[in-house]
Amino acid sequence: MIKVTIWNEFIQEQRKPEVAEIYPKGIHGAIAEGIEQNGVVLRTATFNEPEHGLTEEVMNDTDVLIYWGHVDHKGFQDNVVDRICKRVHEGMGLIVLHSGHHSKLFRKLMGTSCDLLWREADEKERLWVVDPSHPIVEGIGPFIDLPEEEMYGEHFDIPVPDELIFVSWFEGGEIFRSGCTYRRGQGRIFYFRPGHETYPTFYNKDIHRVISNAVKWTAPIKREKTFYGHHDPLEIIKK
Amino acid sequence: MIKVTIWNEFIQEQRKPEVAEIYPKGIHGAIAEGIEQNGVVLRTATFNEPEHGLTEEVMNDTDVLIYWGHVDHKGFQDNVVDRICKRVHEGMGLIVLHSGHHSKLFRKLMGTSCDLLWREADEKERLWVVDPSHPIVEGIGPFIDLPEEEMYGEHFDIPVPDELIFVSWFEGGEIFRSGCTYRRGQGRIFYFRPGHETYPTFYNKDIHRVISNAVKWTAPIKREKTFYGHHDPLEIIKK
Amino acid sequence: MIKVTIWNEFIQEQRKPEVAEIYPKGIHGAIAEGIEQNGVVLRTATFNEPEHGLTEEVMNDTDVLIYWGHVDHKGFQDNVVDRICKRVHEGMGLIVLHSGHHSKLFRKLMGTSCDLLWREADEKERLWVVDPSHPIVEGIGPFIDLPEEEMYGEHFDIPVPDELIFVSWFEGGEIFRSGCTYRRGQGRIFYFRPGHETYPTFYNKDIHRVISNAVKWTAPIKREKTFYGHHDPLEIIKK
Amino acid sequence: MIKVTIWNEFIQEQRKPEVAEIYPKGIHGAIAEGIEQNGVVLRTATFNEPEHGLTEEVMNDTDVLIYWGHVDHKGFQDNVVDRICKRVHEGMGLIVLHSGHHSKLFRKLMGTSCDLLWREADEKERLWVVDPSHPIVEGIGPFIDLPEEEMYGEHFDIPVPDELIFVSWFEGGEIFRSGCTYRRGQGRIFYFRPGHETYPTFYNKDIHRVISNAVKWTAPIKREKTFYGHHDPLEIIKK
Repeated sequence: MIKVTIWNEFIQEQRKPEVAEIYPKGIHGAIAEGIEQNGVVLRTATFNEPEHGLTEEVMNDTDVLIYWGHVDHKGFQDNVVDRICKRVHEGMGLIVLHSGHHSKLFRKLMGTSCDLLWREADEKERLWVVDPSHPIVEGIGPFIDLPEEEMYGEHFDIPVPDELIFVSWFEGGEIFRSGCTYRRGQGRIFYFRPGHETYPTFYNKDIHRVISNAVKWTAPIKREKTFYGHHDPLEIIKK
Repeated sequence: MIKVTIWNEFIQEQRKPEVAEIYPKGIHGAIAEGIEQNGVVLRTATFNEPEHGLTEEVMNDTDVLIYWGHVDHKGFQDNVVDRICKRVHEGMGLIVLHSGHHSKLFRKLMGTSCDLLWREADEKERLWVVDPSHPIVEGIGPFIDLPEEEMYGEHFDIPVPDELIFVSWFEGGEIFRSGCTYRRGQGRIFYFRPGHETYPTFYNKDIHRVISNAVKWTAPIKREKTFYGHHDPLEIIKK
Repeated sequence: MIKVTIWNEFIQEQRKPEVAEIYPKGIHGAIAEGIEQNGVVLRTATFNEPEHGLTEEVMNDTDVLIYWGHVDHKGFQDNVVDRICKRVHEGMGLIVLHSGHHSKLFRKLMGTSCDLLWREADEKERLWVVDPSHPIVEGIGPFIDLPEEEMYGEHFDIPVPDELIFVSWFEGGEIFRSGCTYRRGQGRIFYFRPGHETYPTFYNKDIHRVISNAVKWTAPIKREKTFYGHHDPLEIIKK
Repeated sequence: MIKVTIWNEFIQEQRKPEVAEIYPKGIHGAIAEGIEQNGVVLRTATFNEPEHGLTEEVMNDTDVLIYWGHVDHKGFQDNVVDRICKRVHEGMGLIVLHSGHHSKLFRKLMGTSCDLLWREADEKERLWVVDPSHPIVEGIGPFIDLPEEEMYGEHFDIPVPDELIFVSWFEGGEIFRSGCTYRRGQGRIFYFRPGHETYPTFYNKDIHRVISNAVKWTAPIKREKTFYGHHDPLEIIKK
């Protein structure tokens, strides 16, 4: 069983009626209902819980963390950021969605600003698959069409992705590297662009499928803890 | 002209006679004398200068920063780390040498612990070229032999390098990814493993050559500042 | 079920008593007995069978091909090479072992000579894990020790690997990128260095484990056939 | 001085008046006049010359080959393909333009079909820079606009690029990885998408600049020939 924690900021759903209307159970609720349940144990956590719901205990019991945040990246506690980073380094999988790109967490793991171009104009997004051999696109066609989304455009200030899986086309004229993987320590990370809070993206079957595939792909492998530090020679050193 | 700042911690040369004997002018002095002077303006800076010698003014006048540090990574001021990171993101080249791998600077840019295996046993290191097409190995043979060095071994906890140029063989039985490049923002980074303070590595002609090549390779290109932020559509969006 | 075909040249086992002694059932036999049987259907094929045992029918019924060859790369039929390449492009997984690096098949898929340094001197090889997050190293420690192997050294004339998983240390002073992945078309490829015919490498439990993991990792994902060719516009083009 | 050979098929300019009108001196003529002349010696060659103008002598005197071909890929002599590949493996730079993607040369170096989606509909292409630190985009803004071009769409069946520099947006709804680098042997390759024969793309100043930058970037470095083959041990092997 893969233990998945879906973290959603869950602020706008409570503040803005137009968001609440789309996501009455929160973005975390929509993801939890949509993704593959087989072989997975789901838990959710949100910003307003103590330690954002991501306590030491929860983190140590999490194999894959799904992370959506937007309006209060600054208010996210630094010690919780450090705790999540530590778990990624130890092997926990991490799936960062949409505006999570600008979270303290993602920026710290990337080492860059993660800045980009953006626009809210109810425009069409089409995510093209550029790596058809990748497990994250199992069951996905040549592209995913989203009738309305926020635009994110290049240059996206991220490190060169280890793997580039999706590239988005936007109606207004931009493109974006919208599905990227990274390794950090023993952990695997997937960044996936779509999912603005004012659009029903997290009810889309293809989006569910991609996130479900990514849960499996980022789940930690079983392997002894990697050792670092002073190392005695394995061979004789001549003097 | 490429404006190069060679930063050396310069603590052990002043504390330990055995280091001072090898590097009477400091590691920065040995690098400054050894590397290619043509087309380059050199400056040096050290830990004990105000702001470690890396003031706003110096940083804004630097195209490529060479960085060697070891015993007081903790004492390095956070605001200077941030200043260097900002300059890398803006396009400044960065060459991190040897134990600089564990500096706040490098760890922040990498997003990982940068931990590794290590041992001081006066053993042989042989750096094999694995990317013979790369400008950083111009003029370098199939390998570089160093009769005595500190050992660094895998797993080296870094992100997957954008380019892997050297892999080291150690007499005691380990290997190490010892020449790695990264992009961060508009800047290019080269990590180069050798150079422990108790060995005369920074007098080696091949090491000079690699660092000289890396200065050229990491030097910023000329290009308008990249824009980030709100972006008006370039095409008409239908509603 | 993953349908695996283990292809072994099976020439030296029949010609050389010292090889037959180590591999009385052939290298393919040792691999077939050693790797994980759960969820896998195994078949073997060898050079001397009609069409090297890799007929259209067999290939179309294969999800993952394991390939070991050495002494008669030249005699391998070109049309069978083309058939295998086609299947890789369609999504079949491919695991190339040891001297398979110089096969027509691997060279064609790589686009390079795949030349290297080599030596048969009964020396020690140690394969270090450099990507501890990769499913191919599940259950594997920091390194795999092989008491005696043929040496392969850099420069290994391959394209830059998509992922570098193992790097070998050799007693005689060389290193080698010994576990590499590639994508070609819809198919995933793993090259794994060890396995000279005069050493009992294919009885080693860690080697079994790596190959078993690679079978799972290279197995094709389920996805509609990728379409190529003339494409009608998805959006209105203004004139 | 970098010795550059611009190879153009030069068939359609002679057959089709609408192409001749745009390129009266041939595509090779437009490129030759447009690109940076400083530090460069230019030569051109075309399909109908003996050995396509790419004789042993010409190839051995070429540092960087620029290659544009389209309608007679099949008629290109295999021995000349082999000769060019050999030179790339030895270190010659190669810049493949537009429909050169489907040449025997490029397919052989890639190991894939290099298939893609395509359409001729006089539509807008916008090439976005996704690697702002790369020497190939020196002097280039955030994107290059081409008012009319042929569309090439994903999936583009190439190996994962070593570096991805441009991604194209097309008016009809597709995207494309349109600036890609590869290493093959000692040689560096740049694939650049634009340049259909019925559009004046090769008079565009930005296109000139990118090709000029790529000439410098692909030019071979100076380094002793890489040795392959039997290698005596550098260290004592215990028995």
